[in-house]
Amino acid sequence: MSEKRIGRQTVRLEKPVSVLAGAAVGGDKEGDGPLGRCFDYISEDSYFGEASWEKAESRMLKQCFSLACDKANIAPSSLDAIFGGDLLNQCTASCFAMRDSGAPFFGLYGACSTMAEAAALAAMFIDGGFGSTAAAQSCSHFCSAERQFRFPLEYGGQRTPTAQWTVTAAGALILGRDGGAPYITHVTAGKIVDAGICDAANMGAAMAPAAFDTLTAHFEDTGRSPQDYDIIVTGDLGYVGSKALAGLFEHEGIELENHLDCGLMIFDRERQDVHAGGSGCGCCASVLASLLLSGMREGRWNRMLFAATGALMSPTTSQQGESIPGICHAVAFDTGVQ
Amino acid sequence: MSEKRIGRQTVRLEKPVSVLAGAAVGGDKEGDGPLGRCFDYISEDSYFGEASWEKAESRMLKQCFSLACDKANIAPSSLDAIFGGDLLNQCTASCFAMRDSGAPFFGLYGACSTMAEAAALAAMFIDGGFGSTAAAQSCSHFCSAERQFRFPLEYGGQRTPTAQWTVTAAGALILGRDGGAPYITHVTAGKIVDAGICDAANMGAAMAPAAFDTLTAHFEDTGRSPQDYDIIVTGDLGYVGSKALAGLFEHEGIELENHLDCGLMIFDRERQDVHAGGSGCGCCASVLASLLLSGMREGRWNRMLFAATGALMSPTTSQQGESIPGICHAVAFDTGVQ
Repeated sequence: MSEKRIGRQTVRLEKPVSVLAGAAVGGDKEGDGPLGRCFDYISEDSYFGEASWEKAESRMLKQCFSLACDKANIAPSSLDAIFGGDLLNQCTASCFAMRDSGAPFFGLYGACSTMAEAAALAAMFIDGGFGSTAAAQSCSHFCSAERQFRFPLEYGGQRTPTAQWTVTAAGALILGRDGGAPYITHVTAGKIVDAGICDAANMGAAMAPAAFDTLTAHFEDTGRSPQDYDIIVTGDLGYVGSKALAGLFEHEGIELENHLDCGLMIFDRERQDVHAGGSGCGCCASVLASLLLSGMREGRWNRMLFAATGALMSPTTSQQGESIPGICHAVAFDTGVQ
Repeated sequence: MSEKRIGRQTVRLEKPVSVLAGAAVGGDKEGDGPLGRCFDYISEDSYFGEASWEKAESRMLKQCFSLACDKANIAPSSLDAIFGGDLLNQCTASCFAMRDSGAPFFGLYGACSTMAEAAALAAMFIDGGFGSTAAAQSCSHFCSAERQFRFPLEYGGQRTPTAQWTVTAAGALILGRDGGAPYITHVTAGKIVDAGICDAANMGAAMAPAAFDTLTAHFEDTGRSPQDYDIIVTGDLGYVGSKALAGLFEHEGIELENHLDCGLMIFDRERQDVHAGGSGCGCCASVLASLLLSGMREGRWNRMLFAATGALMSPTTSQQGESIPGICHAVAFDTGVQ
């Protein structure tokens, strides 16, 4: 076993990888939410000037990626690798957004865990000595997701209380071998966990067991406890999934006092009619690249565990009666300040 | 620039990573093809005992993964990581096949380039010191692909001469830090290349420019020439794409004498009515894990460049008039014998 691997699922990077810059772009509803002012750009036009929602999603990601590169003062084509993916069939939002980037591209699919998967692989890519800079990014769009996964928007279908609202947003980080804080220090790669939940309108319940599994593995592998983190942030468990996660930890006698969920942070559930909260690849991607990154820069949090969760189903698997496997990848961020 | 990075897109691994084992599972038509006897298992039942083609594809991959682990004498749950993906919406063939594996899972989407992307990332994962073993795998199924990307099988639609036949097969490699030949020595990560091809029934033409781009980068970065390889194997360019690739190199005054294409190897085009050849993630995955791996083991080839190509489109993007971006990732294999 190498020195970097410190447990069954966790690696400690030999030299912490710097987050050089981050950018977040969102839609109108996200701009109207509690984190609206943290975004780099909010588009009042949900089409982002394009002719379809799928093209809008690509355009949004492309803009976000360009902004992140610009803030890091890096030419996109000089990046050593781009890691990213999205929810659209065949991950076309990412592929089309990156087709002019001129940089090596690794396409990922981890559903709503994709941002953590991308950050994990990008950090390991740099720490492994394979490059000095890499982008990690993801996105989702309410309108493209709604018609692909659920119903045509025009149908106006009612949503169940456990349903979540797919966030229209993109988030991108530029990681570098050389740079300042905050840093990525650890990666805990997730296993697929299937608790037998079959309700595609209750993703939170399907993903909570995976979050519990990966967080538990992270604490075991690192010897850290939840209190060692200023914040533990899950991706998009929403109200139902967050309650389920708290319940799973309570069962082990552990209280997650410092837990936040991006799905509960990005919208005002009282005012914005999102039922159990936000979801989608772009939810935690944009919250990470905006509020969380700036919060670490400003010293509000010195140590953060970012654990994005994904529901690895498709409309086809649900129609065929399958349960919903979940996955969660966790990435530890640190400012280096004690 | 680190020592491992030897050019814009290529890394040379510090310590070559061993291919501990490989396994390939295929369907009836693949069993009837020229490579049928190279497969570990051929299922005469295209449903693989399941109730749907999507479930069949998962079952096939699961069987292939289990066989590969078994041949490497490794318990699946002891793998440090699994890298893989497929063509189904939300990559469900891979996610559902791996949900009981008990190993950390990184989901990928690179269309038909996925096997090379998986092998590249798994090799870098090991060489970077993040684990000692990893699986790289991919799969496709004619019936699940046909109804998802084209027409219901029952419709019996005619196929154009440039169309390719999606291979029903899975391929898996188990890579290890410690072990014998063959080894992975280099990885050249691909950029997305869009040559403006819009015909979704001519994937070969859409992918050939990406293959040319990545192979050219590989030769430039490494200082090697095509003659330095015993074979250069592309994924599934088929007849049209292979001709296009040869043409692009001829234009540069280079003759690719030692080029083979998995899409042309897996079927007998004269006898099996596959038009321009085979395609799909499982095509080059299964050819790599069967014929190519055993050919290297037996000393038939000592140095191989494996370059899998992918067409990064979806039915939606083609219906919206978009062109088809291509990508190609290349992985160099070596027996260490001069």
